[in-house]
Amino acid sequence: MNIDFKELANKYQTPYYVYDFDHITTQYESLKGAFKARKSLIAYAVKANSNLSVIKHLAQLGAGADCVSIGEVKRALKVGIVPYKIIFSGVGKIDSEIKEALELDILMINVESAAELNRVETIAKELDKKARISIRVNPNIDPQTHPYISTGLHENKFGVDIDTAKRMYIQCKNSDNLDPVGIHCHIGSQLTELTPIKESVKIVADLVRNLSALNIDLSFIDIGGGLGIVYDDEVLIDVNDYAQSVLETMFGLDITIVCEPGRSLVGNSGAFVSKVLYEKVNGSKRFIIVDGAMNDLIRPALYNASHKVEVLNDNKEFTDCNLVGPICESGDFFAKNIELPQTEHNDLVVLYSAGAYCFTMASNYNTRGKVAEIAIEDGKDRLIRKRETFEDIIALEEEFIK
Amino acid sequence: MNIDFKELANKYQTPYYVYDFDHITTQYESLKGAFKARKSLIAYAVKANSNLSVIKHLAQLGAGADCVSIGEVKRALKVGIVPYKIIFSGVGKIDSEIKEALELDILMINVESAAELNRVETIAKELDKKARISIRVNPNIDPQTHPYISTGLHENKFGVDIDTAKRMYIQCKNSDNLDPVGIHCHIGSQLTELTPIKESVKIVADLVRNLSALNIDLSFIDIGGGLGIVYDDEVLIDVNDYAQSVLETMFGLDITIVCEPGRSLVGNSGAFVSKVLYEKVNGSKRFIIVDGAMNDLIRPALYNASHKVEVLNDNKEFTDCNLVGPICESGDFFAKNIELPQTEHNDLVVLYSAGAYCFTMASNYNTRGKVAEIAIEDGKDRLIRKRETFEDIIALEEEFIK
Ligand SMILES: Cc1ncc(COP(=O)(O)O)c(C=O)c1O
Ligand SMILES: Cc1ncc(COP(=O)(O)O)c(C=O)c1O
Repeated sequence: MNIDFKELANKYQTPYYVYDFDHITTQYESLKGAFKARKSLIAYAVKANSNLSVIKHLAQLGAGADCVSIGEVKRALKVGIVPYKIIFSGVGKIDSEIKEALELDILMINVESAAELNRVETIAKELDKKARISIRVNPNIDPQTHPYISTGLHENKFGVDIDTAKRMYIQCKNSDNLDPVGIHCHIGSQLTELTPIKESVKIVADLVRNLSALNIDLSFIDIGGGLGIVYDDEVLIDVNDYAQSVLETMFGLDITIVCEPGRSLVGNSGAFVSKVLYEKVNGSKRFIIVDGAMNDLIRPALYNASHKVEVLNDNKEFTDCNLVGPICESGDFFAKNIELPQTEHNDLVVLYSAGAYCFTMASNYNTRGKVAEIAIEDGKDRLIRKRETFEDIIALEEEFIK
Repeated sequence: MNIDFKELANKYQTPYYVYDFDHITTQYESLKGAFKARKSLIAYAVKANSNLSVIKHLAQLGAGADCVSIGEVKRALKVGIVPYKIIFSGVGKIDSEIKEALELDILMINVESAAELNRVETIAKELDKKARISIRVNPNIDPQTHPYISTGLHENKFGVDIDTAKRMYIQCKNSDNLDPVGIHCHIGSQLTELTPIKESVKIVADLVRNLSALNIDLSFIDIGGGLGIVYDDEVLIDVNDYAQSVLETMFGLDITIVCEPGRSLVGNSGAFVSKVLYEKVNGSKRFIIVDGAMNDLIRPALYNASHKVEVLNDNKEFTDCNLVGPICESGDFFAKNIELPQTEHNDLVVLYSAGAYCFTMASNYNTRGKVAEIAIEDGKDRLIRKRETFEDIIALEEEFIK
C-alpha cells in the first residue's frame, strides 16, 4: 500500500481506518470484466463496509447493492444506487422493513424461509403490490472456511433446501402478490476454494432449469459473494476462473448473473492504524500496547482472525510479543506470539486487510468513540467519517438523566 | 423478574434492554453493608453498563466510579460522582487522557506498567502537579474463569509483578510529581471461587506491609471487581464471606478498602427482549429467528456465553432449537441446542442476566441501530436511552459524501 500513514496520523490523529479507493476500483473492474460475456450485476454487499462514501464510490462504478437491513437499503439509495439494483437479503426481516422495501420498489426481496415468504405475501397484499422474490437456496455444501462465516450447510440458519424452494416458487407463481424473479445462494465468506462454489452454483442452475420446465422462468441467478482476500499468505481464487466456472454452469440459460461480493471488493483496500502507548513485559511475555482496541476491530477476538501487522520504525531486531489494546479484557488483542521490532511511544502500527468487516463491527465499549475513516483517491486523502466525540456517544441518553 | 415485558414492548417496541434499578440498589447495599466494619469505597466499574442513568443511580447510593477511559471518567462526572471517588484504570492510557485525569484531580490513576508510570510522571511534571498513583499488581493467580476475562496471570497484559511494583513505589516516593496512595489487583471477572480472590488479596496486603516498612504508607487497597452473577445455575460467592475473607487479610492495616464491581451490581438486573420473526427448519435443525442480533448482544458469539432464555407464550411443548438473529453470520446466535416452545410471529423472547457487558458492546453491524434502554424503578418504567435511528447512524459520515 502506497499510503503515507504518518502524514495521515499527523493530520487526523490515531487510531484511524484508511481505504484506498483506487484499489476498490481495480477490484470492481476486474470482477465486472470477468463476467463480460453475460449480463451481470455486481451488487456490493454493503455489510462489509457500509461507509456512505465507500458505497458511493462503488455506485459510481456501476455497482448495485446487496443489503441485509432497511438501514443498508437506505444507505444505498442515499448515495444514488437506483432501486432496481438493490437486493434485500437476510434471514430475519422485520415487517416494517418488508413494507418499506416494497414501497421503495427495489429489485427483489431475497427470501430465506417459507414463513418469511408468507409474511411478504401478506404485506404485499395489504399494500396491493406484487413483490419481486428471489429465494435463497441452501445447497448443503461445506465451503471450507471459519464456522462463523460458513453459511451453506443445512445446519446453518440460512436459506431453504431445494424441495422447499420448489414449493415456494410454486406458491409465488400462484400468488397475485408474489413474482418469482430470482434465485440465490451464498455458501460462506473468505472462500479460497473454487470447487464448493462451482458445486453449489451447479445445484442452483439445475434448479433454474427444473423451474423453467414448470413455466417458472427466473431472470436473475444470484451466486452470492464470498471470494477471499489476502490476510496472511492465502492463495486466492482467480476471478476469471471464478467467472468461467460460473458461466459454464449457465449454459443454455438466458439469465442475468448477480454476484454480491463484499470482502473481495473492499477488504484489501483498508488498513487500521494505531499508535504505540507502551511496551511492557509480564512474566516472560512482551506486550505492545496500542491506542486501538477490540472495540475498533474485533475480528481477532471474535474469529481468531489474523491481520498482517507492520510497525513503522527502523528497528531491525524483532522479538516475540502480543499486540494488544487498552481494553480491560484479555480478549482485547490484535495478534499473539508475533515477531515485532522494539517500539517507542507514538510509533505507528498498521494492521492490513482491514477494509471489510472491521469498522462495521466497531462498538463504543469502554466509552471509546468510533475512530475516523479516511479515503485515499488519486493520491489525495479525505475524511469520510468524523471521529466520534464524547458528546456523540452520550447524545441519545443525556436527556434522560433524572 | 417482576417486569411486564409485553407492556414495555408495546410502549417502546423491540428489541430493548430493561434494567431493574431496585435490584441494583439491593446489590449495592448488600456489598456496601458487608464492608461496614471498615472505611470502604464501592467504585462501580462503569464499563459493565455505562448508561448515564445507571451510573447516576449508583452515584446516588454513594458509589464511586472505576473508569478505563477518559470517556468513562466524563460519564461519572456528568452524573455527579465527585472527583475524589473516581479511579482511572486500564493498561493503555493515552497522553491526553492522563493529562485530563490530572487536571480533573480524580482520586487516583491506577498504573499498570513501568513505562506508564514514567509517562504519568512526565505529564504531571509538565502540569506541575503531583499525581496520586495506585499500582496494579498482577498476583499470578488463576481465577478459574473464561480466558478472555481472566486477567490475573503473568501471561495476561494486566498489572505488574510484585518486584516491579516495589520498584515503582520507590520511584513514586522519590518523585516530586508522584504520590503513591493505593494498590490494586483484579484477577478476572465472573468469579465463583473465593479462594483465588483471597490468595491474591493476601499477596497484595503483604506487599502493603512491606511497603510500610519502607515508609511508603498507602491509603487505599483496591481489591478489584470480579464477583460472578447467575447466568445459568452458578453458585455465587456470598458477599459476606467475600468481605470477611478480605477483611481478615487486612489485619493491622489502617487502610480504606476499595472494590470495583461491575457485573455483580448490574448484571442480573437486566434483560434483553426481542420478538420472534419466524421459525424455520433447515435439515433437521429448528431455528427461531428474532429481531435482536449479535450486534445488540455479542456475548454468546464472543465468549460462547449462555443466557437463560424465556419465550413468553403459553405453549408447553418444548423442542430443541437454535435461537438466532437476522445477521448474515453463523456467529449470530443467542443459544444453540436449547429446548424452547413452538413460537408464533411476534412472541417475545427474553434473555436474562443482560445488565452487564451487553449493551456496552453493541455495534451498528448491518446498519442496525442500537436498541432502546429502559429503567424500572419503584414499579415505573422510563426510557434511559432512545433507540438509534438511521439518521443517527449516518450522522458522522453524511457530510462527506462527494
Ligand atoms: C447473503 C450474503 N451475500 C453476500 C455476502 C458477502 O460476502 P463476502 O463479503 O464474503 O463477499 C454475505 C456475507 O456474509 C452474505 O451473507
Ligand atoms: C480492573 C478492573 N476492575 C473491575 C472490573 C469489573 O469486573 P466485574 O464486572 O467482573 O466486577 C474489571 C473488568 O474487566 C477490570 O478489568
